[in-house]
Amino acid sequence: MDAKEEFLNLVRDMHRLTSLQGHLGWDQETKMPPKGAAARGDILAWLASEAHGRLTDARMGELLAELEVGSLDADLGANVREMRRKYDEAVKIPSEFIHEFTKTRSSALVAWQQARSEDNWSHFAPHLEKLVALTRQKIELLGNEGTPYDTLLDEYEVGMTVADYDPLFAGLKDRLVPLLKSIMDSGVMIPRLPEGMTFPADAQEAFCNRVSNAMGFDFEAGRMDRSTHPFCAGLWPGDTRFTTRFDEADPFSCLYAVMHEAGHGLYEQGLGAEHVFTPRGHAISLGVHESQSRLWENQIGRTAAFWKVAMPWFREEFPDMPDWSPEKLDLVANEVKPDFIRVEADEVTYNLHVMLRYEIEKMIFNEGLDVEDIPATWNRMFIEWFGIEVPDDTHGCLQDVHWSMAAFGYFPTYTLGNMYAAQLLQAMSKDLGDIDSLIEGGDWTSMLDWLRTNIHEKGSVMTPAELIQQATGSPPAPDAFLEYVEGKYGSLYGI
Amino acid sequence: MDAKEEFLNLVRDMHRLTSLQGHLGWDQETKMPPKGAAARGDILAWLASEAHGRLTDARMGELLAELEVGSLDADLGANVREMRRKYDEAVKIPSEFIHEFTKTRSSALVAWQQARSEDNWSHFAPHLEKLVALTRQKIELLGNEGTPYDTLLDEYEVGMTVADYDPLFAGLKDRLVPLLKSIMDSGVMIPRLPEGMTFPADAQEAFCNRVSNAMGFDFEAGRMDRSTHPFCAGLWPGDTRFTTRFDEADPFSCLYAVMHEAGHGLYEQGLGAEHVFTPRGHAISLGVHESQSRLWENQIGRTAAFWKVAMPWFREEFPDMPDWSPEKLDLVANEVKPDFIRVEADEVTYNLHVMLRYEIEKMIFNEGLDVEDIPATWNRMFIEWFGIEVPDDTHGCLQDVHWSMAAFGYFPTYTLGNMYAAQLLQAMSKDLGDIDSLIEGGDWTSMLDWLRTNIHEKGSVMTPAELIQQATGSPPAPDAFLEYVEGKYGSLYGI
Repeated sequence: MDAKEEFLNLVRDMHRLTSLQGHLGWDQETKMPPKGAAARGDILAWLASEAHGRLTDARMGELLAELEVGSLDADLGANVREMRRKYDEAVKIPSEFIHEFTKTRSSALVAWQQARSEDNWSHFAPHLEKLVALTRQKIELLGNEGTPYDTLLDEYEVGMTVADYDPLFAGLKDRLVPLLKSIMDSGVMIPRLPEGMTFPADAQEAFCNRVSNAMGFDFEAGRMDRSTHPFCAGLWPGDTRFTTRFDEADPFSCLYAVMHEAGHGLYEQGLGAEHVFTPRGHAISLGVHESQSRLWENQIGRTAAFWKVAMPWFREEFPDMPDWSPEKLDLVANEVKPDFIRVEADEVTYNLHVMLRYEIEKMIFNEGLDVEDIPATWNRMFIEWFGIEVPDDTHGCLQDVHWSMAAFGYFPTYTLGNMYAAQLLQAMSKDLGDIDSLIEGGDWTSMLDWLRTNIHEKGSVMTPAELIQQATGSPPAPDAFLEYVEGKYGSLYGI
Repeated sequence: MDAKEEFLNLVRDMHRLTSLQGHLGWDQETKMPPKGAAARGDILAWLASEAHGRLTDARMGELLAELEVGSLDADLGANVREMRRKYDEAVKIPSEFIHEFTKTRSSALVAWQQARSEDNWSHFAPHLEKLVALTRQKIELLGNEGTPYDTLLDEYEVGMTVADYDPLFAGLKDRLVPLLKSIMDSGVMIPRLPEGMTFPADAQEAFCNRVSNAMGFDFEAGRMDRSTHPFCAGLWPGDTRFTTRFDEADPFSCLYAVMHEAGHGLYEQGLGAEHVFTPRGHAISLGVHESQSRLWENQIGRTAAFWKVAMPWFREEFPDMPDWSPEKLDLVANEVKPDFIRVEADEVTYNLHVMLRYEIEKMIFNEGLDVEDIPATWNRMFIEWFGIEVPDDTHGCLQDVHWSMAAFGYFPTYTLGNMYAAQLLQAMSKDLGDIDSLIEGGDWTSMLDWLRTNIHEKGSVMTPAELIQQATGSPPAPDAFLEYVEGKYGSLYGI
């Protein structure tokens, strides 16, 4: 067996183990009976430790070194690049540290759930303090250049640092805050659904099936289930699963969750099956993944053009729905309002939520903000940026799961997703013509094909920045998003 | 780490891998999208080979040898005994052979499905020939004492040989054939459901949920799903899953499938969680497992006493059902009729189906019966034993999946299950009093507790024969079953 084959075998073994974690994770959220939790925890921890063993295997280091001196084709090059990054990071972290970190995270998650349901920050704070301390230790162990927070940012979107995010976010904030003010001053009234009208879960499911089929999601190679929080799991070729939840008083929440998750799902279904269980066959980054979900959810789904196509399906499932125009539904789908919860935020305020978390994380890791000062800092910034007072920590700094998992540096990738999506839409429009006309035409194949060719099939062959550059002709930048959001909401709210 | 800990760690790793196969198997039958099949095959084969690697690890041999010279407590002793058996067998089989066998089985399964749907034996025969040849090779590799078929029988129920089965089956046949004849001559008419009446799947599901809850199946530690063929998968502590299917023209088929699978499930739920991922925490044998399913399905479920309890639930779900007495329903549930399909057979003819397969397998491996002669042999024996002519191979030698999986030696464990169940019922009755009165009382906890104490909690601490001896005071024997079946059907059919 030559070095290439031996390397790929080791890489595939590692990814089989992480894919099994993904499968058990999906099952845990959708099918697992409650008393299965303990054994599930054991087997997930075991899979993680087995995968870590393959990654940090001495042979992995030797094979990487051997392959790196030769000339590699693009696919093998991508696998070597990605495995080198993961290997170098993994070998710096002792397994006792991982054990301690995993254990602390587990109890922090439980404490966060309780703290959130009781609105009791002080119940969560000591756990968060431990996680912050461990994360600082991890930053030291990794010993990268740049600011401490840079190390965390790089983990979730390779190559991104505070020096990249700061000007980007400043540019967004400078134009989003005035846009939000103009919208709030516009006096436009959002139509309300008839009082007491219900939308049965089964009918919502049928409607969402129709929409995700129209998007091109292949249900022969995937499925839709229910879970408390919607998510998408791309397990392996031919098997991509996403979830949603049903609120019988509100059909839009489920619809846009489905378009979001099916957008993630289309990316997974478009990855090259021939690269199964290697990085080359995986999505390149969280930011790019989020661009795929946001593009379908917002730029395709939250338009009058979409509703021209979807209205008949909607009325077929909900015959009591009043005869609203696509434009009226479009307005409902694009209500802008400063509010407390990020996951429910509109496109204008969403990135402000992200930036607020970014600023606080930066303060924690680069400026030494104490965990105990997080609530006051959060609430002070919130009133400055959103103009509304946070009523309690459940609607404030306790709302997201991320910190309980020590996922510091994750939030900014949501905004990257929005930026990339807007850039991709512009580039797609250059190739395919007016996007609204395409959406209205009801056949969305050419849009999916464009994404397949320019994003999905590329897997991890390039870095995120290279991929966006190649697909759109420009480096990652906020202009396209600002143009899009100012144009769309300017016209919706008559500004 | 001492030898015991190192041994148990290796054993647990192996069982984590086989449990993951079980989980993916469940998912494959209930949730997997069709295009996921190829990657699923890859990952299942990989898990099998990883598990085999742990089992045949040189350390396993060393640790077994080291532990066997010391004095072991009962739990560790059981684990050493079971692992020794598996290890000795596994190290005799080269991995190239396993690879070849697995590949041949995969294509045989596909060929069998096609042959069955086209009623075309000759499409399946060449695959079966290969499987028989490979199985003969495997018997040689294992090099056990006794007849060739003994090696296969022992794989499915340790300690059982042709010398054990032959007299047992002869004894059964001697009394079952005349019993069947008397029943057929009795002239008793079986009531028929009203023409065209349907039993909606949702209502059947609700009814079956109620029954399995009454049995004591813990739905907080398990679930019920749908699949083409009902089965039960005991994954790990707190997570036991069984399946069923719904025929809207016939509510009994689903009910008894559920009682059967939930019976398996109760065994799995009663195994000691402290022995997770070791043989001690697993069911001891197929025969004992089948005794648990058959006891609930037949000896509890197919009685007038059961219907006295279940009738109100049944009528709540199916309000159009005529007001039949429990005795009338009991007769419907116990219709005896010589027919072609084993899985649909009643308690009287069921074991004859098993014996016919046993005889043919014995001829193949001990007497050199050619694969091409199987259909004629089957059909000739069938008319002799059942008095009816097999119309085609789909209703004859193509009906079961087992041979396509090379599961030669498996069938007899079904009859052992029936025998054990009857012995257990007798013993239970000695401890708890009249079983029909207990069933009729509607609280079945004491029966489940008895099974928990005498069977479930024992896991693999003893061999099957020792377990039956300890639980019932007698070695495995057919008398209890014959008494049960002659008593029950004699009274039902007025013989």
